[in-house]
Amino acid sequence: MVKSIRGVLLMVCGYFRGVCHVTPNLSAAASGGRDGGTSQVEVAVIQHVCHYTFPSAAQASSPDRHRTMNPDITRERQHATFDVEKLTHILDGGPEKTRRRREIESMVFSDPDFKEEDPNFLSRSERYDQAVKKSAQMILKLREYGIADPDEIYCYKNCVHPDRPEPLDLHLGMFLPTLLNQATPEQMDRFFMPAWNLEIIGTYAQTEMGHGTHLRGLETTATYDPATQEFVLNSPTISSIKWWPGGLGKTSNHAIVLAQLYTQGNFYGLHAFIVPIRDMDTHIPLPGIVVGDIGPKFGFNEVDNGYLKLENVRIPRDNMLMKYAKVEPDGTYLKPPSAKLTYGTMVFIRSMIVGESARALSKSCTIAIRYSSVRHQSEIRPGDPEPQILDYQAQQYKLFPLLAMAYAFSFVGQYMRRTYNRISGDITQGDFSELPELHALSAGLKAFTTWATNSAIEVCRMSCGGHGYSRSSGLPDIYVEFTPTCTYEGENTVMMLQTARYLLKSYRQAKAGQQLSGIVSYLNEPKHQRVQPQPVAARPTVVDINDLASLVEVYKQRAAILVDLAAKSIEQELQQRKSQEDAWNNSAIDLVRASDAHCHYVVVKLFTDKLVEVGDTAIHSVMSSLALLYALHGITKNSGDFLQAGLLNVPQVLQISARIKELLSQLRPNAVALVDAFDIHDKKLNSVLGRYDGNVYENLFEWARRSPLNSTEVHESFHKYLKPLRSKL
Amino acid sequence: MVKSIRGVLLMVCGYFRGVCHVTPNLSAAASGGRDGGTSQVEVAVIQHVCHYTFPSAAQASSPDRHRTMNPDITRERQHATFDVEKLTHILDGGPEKTRRRREIESMVFSDPDFKEEDPNFLSRSERYDQAVKKSAQMILKLREYGIADPDEIYCYKNCVHPDRPEPLDLHLGMFLPTLLNQATPEQMDRFFMPAWNLEIIGTYAQTEMGHGTHLRGLETTATYDPATQEFVLNSPTISSIKWWPGGLGKTSNHAIVLAQLYTQGNFYGLHAFIVPIRDMDTHIPLPGIVVGDIGPKFGFNEVDNGYLKLENVRIPRDNMLMKYAKVEPDGTYLKPPSAKLTYGTMVFIRSMIVGESARALSKSCTIAIRYSSVRHQSEIRPGDPEPQILDYQAQQYKLFPLLAMAYAFSFVGQYMRRTYNRISGDITQGDFSELPELHALSAGLKAFTTWATNSAIEVCRMSCGGHGYSRSSGLPDIYVEFTPTCTYEGENTVMMLQTARYLLKSYRQAKAGQQLSGIVSYLNEPKHQRVQPQPVAARPTVVDINDLASLVEVYKQRAAILVDLAAKSIEQELQQRKSQEDAWNNSAIDLVRASDAHCHYVVVKLFTDKLVEVGDTAIHSVMSSLALLYALHGITKNSGDFLQAGLLNVPQVLQISARIKELLSQLRPNAVALVDAFDIHDKKLNSVLGRYDGNVYENLFEWARRSPLNSTEVHESFHKYLKPLRSKL
Repeated sequence: MVKSIRGVLLMVCGYFRGVCHVTPNLSAAASGGRDGGTSQVEVAVIQHVCHYTFPSAAQASSPDRHRTMNPDITRERQHATFDVEKLTHILDGGPEKTRRRREIESMVFSDPDFKEEDPNFLSRSERYDQAVKKSAQMILKLREYGIADPDEIYCYKNCVHPDRPEPLDLHLGMFLPTLLNQATPEQMDRFFMPAWNLEIIGTYAQTEMGHGTHLRGLETTATYDPATQEFVLNSPTISSIKWWPGGLGKTSNHAIVLAQLYTQGNFYGLHAFIVPIRDMDTHIPLPGIVVGDIGPKFGFNEVDNGYLKLENVRIPRDNMLMKYAKVEPDGTYLKPPSAKLTYGTMVFIRSMIVGESARALSKSCTIAIRYSSVRHQSEIRPGDPEPQILDYQAQQYKLFPLLAMAYAFSFVGQYMRRTYNRISGDITQGDFSELPELHALSAGLKAFTTWATNSAIEVCRMSCGGHGYSRSSGLPDIYVEFTPTCTYEGENTVMMLQTARYLLKSYRQAKAGQQLSGIVSYLNEPKHQRVQPQPVAARPTVVDINDLASLVEVYKQRAAILVDLAAKSIEQELQQRKSQEDAWNNSAIDLVRASDAHCHYVVVKLFTDKLVEVGDTAIHSVMSSLALLYALHGITKNSGDFLQAGLLNVPQVLQISARIKELLSQLRPNAVALVDAFDIHDKKLNSVLGRYDGNVYENLFEWARRSPLNSTEVHESFHKYLKPLRSKL
Repeated sequence: MVKSIRGVLLMVCGYFRGVCHVTPNLSAAASGGRDGGTSQVEVAVIQHVCHYTFPSAAQASSPDRHRTMNPDITRERQHATFDVEKLTHILDGGPEKTRRRREIESMVFSDPDFKEEDPNFLSRSERYDQAVKKSAQMILKLREYGIADPDEIYCYKNCVHPDRPEPLDLHLGMFLPTLLNQATPEQMDRFFMPAWNLEIIGTYAQTEMGHGTHLRGLETTATYDPATQEFVLNSPTISSIKWWPGGLGKTSNHAIVLAQLYTQGNFYGLHAFIVPIRDMDTHIPLPGIVVGDIGPKFGFNEVDNGYLKLENVRIPRDNMLMKYAKVEPDGTYLKPPSAKLTYGTMVFIRSMIVGESARALSKSCTIAIRYSSVRHQSEIRPGDPEPQILDYQAQQYKLFPLLAMAYAFSFVGQYMRRTYNRISGDITQGDFSELPELHALSAGLKAFTTWATNSAIEVCRMSCGGHGYSRSSGLPDIYVEFTPTCTYEGENTVMMLQTARYLLKSYRQAKAGQQLSGIVSYLNEPKHQRVQPQPVAARPTVVDINDLASLVEVYKQRAAILVDLAAKSIEQELQQRKSQEDAWNNSAIDLVRASDAHCHYVVVKLFTDKLVEVGDTAIHSVMSSLALLYALHGITKNSGDFLQAGLLNVPQVLQISARIKELLSQLRPNAVALVDAFDIHDKKLNSVLGRYDGNVYENLFEWARRSPLNSTEVHESFHKYLKPLRSKL
């Protein structure tokens, strides 16, 4: 099953969502192909993974759909105009994938070992405890069942810890892969197998309290002492304390520490060192190690993100990861062979995050739309019964564009994953030509989709009225677990600027007459290079607001114009004798805006492209409405850009507003079916409001009664403070 | 000090932020003037409040500004171009107000009885316990010190529970005022004094699990039984269970229950009943009462929002609040005298929420901007030291418009409070003429400011990078405590539609030739009624983008045009034979947009008006830059509207983008001083990142080490799960 060490790498990477708190540059170094043959360790791992066969799943289909249903939601389902199951297959990538996904879900959800108490009812320490317990079980079962396909492991893990990060994420997602990529064979034998068997539990300690994105700024030092053939590691300042690595606080006994290397009085920059931090047997921190949990966060309660302060910690010379760079026993530094920089892991994780945006958004839409179909409130016509709140135009206008966005991001996520696989195939064959584009695209799309999803989750939550604030709705948890994606694996504004750098480079190449290929080829189209904002009247109207191809064209032109505008801003700054760097900084607003428009164009284009693949007429019809809604809604939200550039005129903008209202009505009967098609198991959704059966109120009451504050009838504070107060007043 | 029962009402209302989860219509009924003389109870209350005198405050000035400062932040302060203290006085409403505020802050923060453990380190039950303890202390001390001015009580409370709701909010903010307004003298004697002395602790139970905004939909019943002269209260369905009232879960022994009245076989609609729910002595729930906490929420951890299920609960006839409507012993229903509908309380609370938006935003900006001035990251020019992140244009563009918004909302909050006071004076004299406008304005501005602030807090949090996710930053707490304002006291979309209703009514009056007064008088200006979107070229350019008066005019015209557009949408729907109600629902998008534009105009106008009051030249200058930034940024974010309406042309929009960049640079040296002027005490800010002294890192480390997961070196899960795992693999 695991055909290569690359498979193991992908597996452990794919295993875990990008919760590594690793900033771009170095996670890059954690990828790259291996050039040697299969080592002893690799063979052991492969044998291990392949030893067992799959158990037969207890039940194949996910929720029990024969229970008593809320009649409102049943009626909604009866009105759907398309086959929900077929759309689920499209989202999963085929009926076989759907079947297997449900099989894995059933495996986990029917397994009593994974039964959990609602984390919202537990203290932080209890949540961590429960997560460690489940992670240990998970490791055992994955190996027992021989589940080894990266996608399947990812699926399994996301059922065990429903879309939550967990304490072993960094061990499996960063520590092991880094060993695979940067350890010498001797180091592999010494560290990998014990780590594979969880004697060594490791993390990846890069970020410091005072230093994130900018790796050259990291302060931790590793000074070589030839007398003892050891490195001496130090955290010379408060700001140099390692901060944030997952699993560092309480779980790990080893860390790969990134530190600035000094040897023979010279400075050689950042290198990676394996540092034992806790006793293997007692788990007590070792001398010179100050380690602990960084304290409560907004979400991530299951993870012990940690700090690590190093006080003259000595490690053997051969604990430096020396597959590339080396320090000889006498302290001589050997440069790494100029390895091709590969962006593999980084691109992979960012591409995965696009898919995560889609998942978080799909869950949020499922909850908000199902709830809106069973919640009745106020009145439209006096005397009529209270309507379902989904019948309010204002509610549809909040939710349906987000539903369209969830589908858009799902398809973009599929595209990114497919493209990554294709390009990583090319890379294996030495062809790096498409990597820079994918790198730029994954950076921008990571930012574009996470920002949009971040806001969208909150719109969904607030669309559920008061009950959206209850933890039982599931929405607060979706938000707090998702929102870090805007910062980790590359802070979003930094990501947008990286994409802008690629766009500007391409723009200049195009201007210099070079023929661009790929998704930026539009920068070659000469008319855009001449485009100047001009009165609407001067431009012929060619846009058909009902034609997706025409809208893709408009989005493309908007992107081209905004790239041009950003380039002009830089030129102007340079003319005012600013340095290149200041000119860049003083154009940041325009650059981010250009990247945003580029990404928006890509999303509209990929959604439109996807429609070609959809053969089923009924599904094609509803998907086309969604794609149109996505594109038109994006135009109204950015109408200034389109008007400013003369790409649309005022009557068209007014027509678009009217068309959006029509689309809302058109999508209304299919709204519940469209979220059903995401096929999110109730146990994954973990939302009283979003339950498949629509039985919200009885379950809300049931949930509340189990809440810890209700474990006693009278809270002790009554006797301690309130009753005594009477006599004092 | 308390001159009237209205004073007491204002005091207890003012006391507590609007956390009542009370929907509009009935909270209106909770206000209204008293027509009788001073009752026995009133005299007792006034005596009670006035009995003591103020203690002298321990120290007058707030943070200790002589401690060691971070040199970056010191340098920032040295570069300020204006007198921070003078700006603080403007924000407080005068130097005397500043002095007194600091005095109260000092009283609380130097009081060992209010020393608290960081709630982030406590369990839900411990947080509730700590809050009850502090609330009890607070009641004692307020009476001991005789603090009775509503503003001063509000200030004191917000120091004791730093901007957090607390378990007695509903008792003091809703239970007591409702008694004051709706109880008969007999009921006052029976309930008010025990409640004032906290023998009776009450809440206000209106919202049900299945029913919020729409009061006619409430299901709880109160059926009169003449045989025993009792009301029998029931929760006939799951959805009728009372849900959300603060203090209901564990704290209260009484509730004012809103229920549908049935007597003599007839239905008389919603009335209020005083229902004992727990034994006064043992605090055990009474027979027929199922009461408890609704479980963990997104924030509000200190409050026991509760549920209440009534199962044939019998209360004496005279527990119905009968100041207006009455039920006679034989069951005869007596209608209330047609009391003038007053929106007093509702308008008051919504106006207060505008001020709260300003405070939450001020806090968030203080944290993000101070942190951005001490955080160094990456590089602008290669080889230079890492710059303060506040030097990045992208960072300025995130934060300075929000800083401008914080000032805008502060001044709007001042205006709303002043206007409320003026109009409530008029009302006392029987003049209700301005109330509808204030009602409409407070609804819209509540929605406009809370939505904007809600997003802005998250922008501030994410602008702090990883550390923004740490609870130590204070930002997650600001967000979760603030975000409910978007839903309670009137769901924001509903609020926007209420304002739209007023705008449309005014629009029709204007069209019918009626002369409008007040803030909607622009709907009279004839040119707007004829405005049609038209090519830019056809409109003369009159707008000066550097002139605030000119920008106010542009915002006004935009509002007028969007009101016109909404009206036209309704007309078109009516022409298609839709009913009035469907036409309204099918125009909801346009109506919300019109309200939003109206509110935006009001905010720009009020900010501009405020400048006239600012005498100090240096402050006037920096405030003008902020106002300009607020206005111009709003235009770029909505440039489609302005272009579409032909109010601005394309070159102007480009000029505005350039002008915004200039304003960012211009404001840069004053950024820290501008947040310092909010003068938020470190203990209120409760943020490691936002500390006045800028010493972020050492305090972050210190905070983390105190975190509960670090109370032991080795977490028990190691011995329970991780170590045993080794032998199984």
